[in-house]
Formats: sequence, structure tokens, C-alpha cells
Amino acid sequence: MSDSSLFSRADHDFMARALRLARKGIYTTMPNPTVGCVLVRNGEVIGEGYTSPAGGPHGEINALKAAGEAEGATAYVTLEPCAHYGRTPPCAEALVKAGIRRVVAAMRDPNPRVNGGGFEILKKAGIETASGLMEAEAREINAGFFKRMEQELPYVRCKMAMSVDGRTAMASGESQWITGPDARADVQQWRAQSCAIVTGVDSIIHDNSSLTVRVNELRIDHPAAAAEKQPVRVVVDSRLRIPLDAKILTLPGQTVIACLSDENGKTSQLEALGAEVVVLPEAAGRVCLRALMTFLARRECNNVLLETGATLAGSAVAAGLVDELLVYMAPVLMGSDARPLFQLPFETMAEKVPLKIHDIRAFGPDWRITAKPIERL
Amino acid sequence: MSDSSLFSRADHDFMARALRLARKGIYTTMPNPTVGCVLVRNGEVIGEGYTSPAGGPHGEINALKAAGEAEGATAYVTLEPCAHYGRTPPCAEALVKAGIRRVVAAMRDPNPRVNGGGFEILKKAGIETASGLMEAEAREINAGFFKRMEQELPYVRCKMAMSVDGRTAMASGESQWITGPDARADVQQWRAQSCAIVTGVDSIIHDNSSLTVRVNELRIDHPAAAAEKQPVRVVVDSRLRIPLDAKILTLPGQTVIACLSDENGKTSQLEALGAEVVVLPEAAGRVCLRALMTFLARRECNNVLLETGATLAGSAVAAGLVDELLVYMAPVLMGSDARPLFQLPFETMAEKVPLKIHDIRAFGPDWRITAKPIERL
Repeated sequence: MSDSSLFSRADHDFMARALRLARKGIYTTMPNPTVGCVLVRNGEVIGEGYTSPAGGPHGEINALKAAGEAEGATAYVTLEPCAHYGRTPPCAEALVKAGIRRVVAAMRDPNPRVNGGGFEILKKAGIETASGLMEAEAREINAGFFKRMEQELPYVRCKMAMSVDGRTAMASGESQWITGPDARADVQQWRAQSCAIVTGVDSIIHDNSSLTVRVNELRIDHPAAAAEKQPVRVVVDSRLRIPLDAKILTLPGQTVIACLSDENGKTSQLEALGAEVVVLPEAAGRVCLRALMTFLARRECNNVLLETGATLAGSAVAAGLVDELLVYMAPVLMGSDARPLFQLPFETMAEKVPLKIHDIRAFGPDWRITAKPIERL
Repeated sequence: MSDSSLFSRADHDFMARALRLARKGIYTTMPNPTVGCVLVRNGEVIGEGYTSPAGGPHGEINALKAAGEAEGATAYVTLEPCAHYGRTPPCAEALVKAGIRRVVAAMRDPNPRVNGGGFEILKKAGIETASGLMEAEAREINAGFFKRMEQELPYVRCKMAMSVDGRTAMASGESQWITGPDARADVQQWRAQSCAIVTGVDSIIHDNSSLTVRVNELRIDHPAAAAEKQPVRVVVDSRLRIPLDAKILTLPGQTVIACLSDENGKTSQLEALGAEVVVLPEAAGRVCLRALMTFLARRECNNVLLETGATLAGSAVAAGLVDELLVYMAPVLMGSDARPLFQLPFETMAEKVPLKIHDIRAFGPDWRITAKPIERL
């Protein structure tokens, strides 16, 4: 809608402030996007806010409430104000009603129910609008929501722990613990940002994983609020091999078992334990991961965290379903007979998966590599 | 000799300056250590210098020359002044003669021909001496010299290029180029610091490697001076499989071929081409790498760079010969059938090699991991 040369230094500063506000909501607003809003009059901030947990007011409404009155102010918003009646009335109308003079948005809302409709309402009311300021930053904060809106797939992060020589476990399966407490605590914040955590049934069989967000390990502001809504736990279990006494079946929150058919007649037993059993299409003898991700997107999952072994993770990478790798590297060599990071049977360099490494940083003695697969040339 | 609480803030500042000077000599002083010297009188630097290339004056002499006269000054030196007549007269005597009042050294010289003897000369002349200031930093600069003096082995760096999933080549051997020009240029400065570069004969057969320091790729100050003394090129070639038309045999500088016996009667042909053929003891059917390192230490090699494949590098790690890993990680996944970083056939986690990761930094799109194996617990 406009290029960034149209924006002043002050516009950038206030939008940066709105983006900081938006980030405060990443643990709580799903399935909604988190939106920050700053109201400015005569160069002064008169109110600010960000989206409340789903069902509560959006960022704009919270900012208007904080300001009391906002006649003639400019509103900086990290996303186009909504135009539709959802769980709350449209924010665009609230801004009109408050007498806002100018609205600067970081980006258009790709939600088909908005998608320019918010700007239309504002323009019809004679409000000056502009969009595209610090859009890349704004996209990143709600990457999951946008991917779901644009592709009907969740934003998938794949978390792995490996040695410097790229190994996740000994050939025997022996693996706990590769990384230390600081790295494991960091994983908790990724779990807390996720709508679903996906694992393979082997993790359940061998490690009896629980896949919950643990409030006492969550090193962020307001950990209790972030941990309140536990992500859906998804077990990929083609043949329903999950033990009926698995810890994951006893925990509060939702557990979904994705299988190919009720082969063992276990569905009713699992349902009696509170789990949901979902039959999905097959791909190469296993649950089709693309079908699983589509299923999760329809369940309004924006962000999905894969915490699996090399086989399932490799299949997800090969299928092009992984948006981001979070690889925790421990200071150790595990040797050439140990299990690979990803099961990816390539023969030639032409098949390799090119990545962009965004960041490498230390967590105690371990390091976290953040990388994204990029389009092959 | 003294603990660091005896040293003032000014002492630390001047020693830091001497260490910076010492670092300027890392490319040129081998087989000698590089020593920095700062002469200070009434809080002012009156002269400074560092060791000239082997045969030339040591750091102390260069600093005294720069000062002109240094009566009553304090000398900050990164290593105990030498006490012996080598290619140059002893620095301790020169300091006495110049009327220096106090000598502060970072550490004692472990060279058996010095080892406290320099301090003795100074003390006998009534000069106040102190040692141990910023010793860890000083040790690091001359790690190769000290290891050779203390253990009769060189300091061995092992350079590898790998993918994020810890692979160095496809199963077919296809590997060039995993990393980009910035990472490859960084390797040049490690070559230039090395007295010898060791490779396996397969690298010669498959890649026709030259292992030279290339002045135009050396992104350091005074690249020509650093590249002047080319490191000895060492080919580990148990059965003398090296092709007689290998590029490495045509280049200026020394090439050493380490073998188990003159099996093919190729020795005289290789010698006619200017190479030196050395017969070494066997270990598990191959050239014993410990014997090779001992041989190189006797040849006054302080720093050795391994640029080999996974098998030779794995053997060196397993034998405890590697002091430092330089792993260049390229932003790519090469897959689980590709070749490992190190051939290390471990079965249990107890066998793993613990590392300390000292540093990870970017070189263009690639990252360099610097790590040191640490004692197993």
C-alpha cells in the first residue's frame, strides 16, 4: 500500500514500540494473532495495548481503553485492524468511533475475513491509512497465524538436540540427556508458544514423554499465564502402538493420536482415557505428515513444534513441511555409528537441503542453531 | 612465582599491550615463540617490540632498540626472557645491561634451556622480577611452542568442513565446495600459522590438494611476510599410493611422505621429485599418528594443521592427539547417507568425546565452531 520512505523517524519509533507490545502476546492469543497498538497525539503516547487471550479485546481496544479518549490521535498497529464480528466487534469501527485521524499498520491482515476490509472501513470514515511499515518484523511475530491463513498449514518448528558431529542418540537409542538444563529450559518457551506439539510413538514408548509446558522451567515474564493453555499433544502412531499406561494419557489437556486405522481395536480404550483418535491418509506406509498438518491447521493451530526422532523429522523436512529448525548442539562427539540428525537418504549434493542460518547462541555449554530451509536453486 | 593480586591496573594494561604485540608474530617466528615486550618509565611507554622471524632479534631486543636507552624502566614481557645463547644472545643479559629496574613476565619459559634461568640472571643483577600476569592469554599465543617443549608433541588443530547435520561429503566422495569463500579464506590464516599441514593420500588422489598458503587469500596484515615460510606439507600414505604427477610434488617448499615401508619401490622416484619419504611405525595397519606427531615435534613443528577426511581425523581424535577442532559449518543438510564428520565407532554414551566449545562465529553464510576436547570425567 505504501513504501517505507513515506514513514517518518517517529513513525518507525512508534511502530517499534507497537511490535514490542505485540510480542508480549505470543504465548496467550492463539489462535488469534497478537497485535500491538500505540496511540499518539502531538508526539506523545496517550495509550497502548496488545491483544488479550482469545475471546478478550484486541490490541486496539485495549489501547483505546488505556487512553480514555483518543480524538485526533494516530494509531500505530502491527496488523490491519479487523473488519469482522468474531468473538469481539470489529476494531476498525472502534477506531472510527474514537475519532482516530490516522492509522499506520505494519501489514494487511491476510485473514480472508479481513484482507483489506479494515482499511476500507477506515478510509470510508475519512481516516488516513498507511501500511507496510516494518512489515518483516510484524510477519515474524505472527508467522504461524499468517501461514495458516495463507496456506492452510501451520508454521512448523522442528526441535532437535545433537552432538557437534550431528548425532541425536547412540545406535542403541541411548540419548538422555544430550543437552543441559539451560537448553532444555529454552525448549519450554517454544512449547509455550505452540498450539500443538507433535511426537512419534517411539518417544512415548522409549522415553514416556509428557510434552507439557512446565511453569517452573519457563524463564519468561508471566510464566503461569503462558503455561495456562497447554498445547495439544499429538502422537504420530500409525499402528496404535501407544501403551495404555503412557504418562501422556494421564495428563490434563488434549491428546490426539494420529493413526492409519484402528488396527488393534484400541480406539475405544484410548477414547475412554480421554484421548482423541484420528485416522489420517497414508504416505509411504506411515501417517501422511502433510495431512496431519492440514488437520492441525483446521483445528486453528498456528504454530506446531515437532519434537521427534530422526525418521519423522527427516520425513517432515523432505516433505517441505518444516519452516524452522531449532537445533541444540551439545559440546560432545557421539561418533559415526550414532543416529543421524535427520533420516534423509540423499545420494548427490544436488539433493541437499539449503538452509539460512539466522542465529547461533549459547545456552550454558550448549548452543542453539536457528535455521530455515530455503528454496532450492 | 606470584599471584595476580600483586599486579596493578597499570601492570595489566601494559601486559595486555605486550600480548597484542606478541600476536603480531604468530605467522613468522616459528619455531621460536613470539614474545611481546613493552618498556615503561614513569608510566609512559618508551619502547616496544616483538620477536623477529627466526634468527632475528627477540621481542626484548627490539623494544630496547626502539627505546634507545631504558635505564630504570620496567619491562613487560609475555614470556620469561631467555637465558641461553641460541641464534641470538640471551635477552636477560641485555635487560641487565640496559639498566632495567623491574621485569614483569606473563609466564616462565618451559624451554628446558631457559625454565627459570632468565629470572635467575635478572635477580642476580638486583632486578625485581614477577611472573604469572595474564598467563592464560600468553599460553594461548604460543600454545604450539609450549606443547612441544612440555610434551614433545605439536599443538594439533583439526580443520573440517561440514553440513549442519555433521556430514563432510556424500557417500560417493562428492564434497567440493561445502563452505564459501569467507570460510576458505579463514582456513588460509590457520595454514599460515602452522609449521606443518597433514593430509591423507586420498585427498591428494581425489582432490589433488596443494596445501599451500595463498598470499592473495590471506586476509591479515602483511600477508606476504606470513606466507613466505610455507608450512611443511605432510602426506600420510601408508602404502605410497601417491601419484607421481601429484601437484603437491611440484610446488616450492618441503613435502614429506609418511609411509610404513617402501612397498612400491617408489621412494627414489619421490625423492628425485624433491619429496622426503619417512618410514614410521604402524598402528592398526596404518601410519601411527602419534609417531608422526613426535617426528614433527623433533622437526621443530609447533603447530600442526590436520586437513584430512573423516577416517584420519577420527583416528587422531581417538588417539587424543587433537588439541583443537576448527569446524566450518555450512548452511545445508547433506543427509544421513553422507560421510560423517569423524570416523569414531562408539557404542555407548560413556565413550563420547566431551568438548568445550570456545567460540562460534560467522564467516559469510558459514559458521566456524572452535572447540577443544576435554578430559573424560
